[in-house]
Amino acid sequence: MNAEPFLQLDRVIHEKGRLAIMSLLAASPQLAFTEIRDTLEMTDGNVTAHLRTLHEAGYVAVTKAFQEGRQLTSYALTPPGRKAFSAYIDLLEQIVAQAKTK
Amino acid sequence: MNAEPFLQLDRVIHEKGRLAIMSLLAASPQLAFTEIRDTLEMTDGNVTAHLRTLHEAGYVAVTKAFQEGRQLTSYALTPPGRKAFSAYIDLLEQIVAQAKTK
Repeated sequence: MNAEPFLQLDRVIHEKGRLAIMSLLAASPQLAFTEIRDTLEMTDGNVTAHLRTLHEAGYVAVTKAFQEGRQLTSYALTPPGRKAFSAYIDLLEQIVAQAKTK
Repeated sequence: MNAEPFLQLDRVIHEKGRLAIMSLLAASPQLAFTEIRDTLEMTDGNVTAHLRTLHEAGYVAVTKAFQEGRQLTSYALTPPGRKAFSAYIDLLEQIVAQAKTK
């Protein structure tokens, strides 16, 4: 068995909550906090903590804007975030392929 | 996006060290401690801790035998471990497929 794909898995993305958020953001130009929370059935606290970790890793950009007098915060993958997610998915694909050839 | 595959990921298997061990054991009838440690380039402490967690979850069976006067300990997936690993890999496959269709 080739151990490389496991060793290379990005710990920031691998945590299952963050993997779900990264997958969701990869499918949209940007999303509001409530869209992420409701789609993934997560608590406010979990979403906040995971988004902070992803933001600090440089994978998620935060945009704050006023819309109809209310502040609206939206989240989007950055180019490095998209690249890291794509590399991570490639590794998962290798792990699945290894498992299937047994 | 379908959030189900993320929610269903088995936390026992998802940790990357344990995922590597499960993948390795899935490819063999059984393995010695040193084979696992050396293939995955892990420390003794890490392998011990992960194997204990997998054993406590009922996923890994431990067999102790005497061979040429020395005690030999070997590890193998249990039927529930094999089933859980297979279900986990199916979920990864769904996650990869979702990521690729974007």
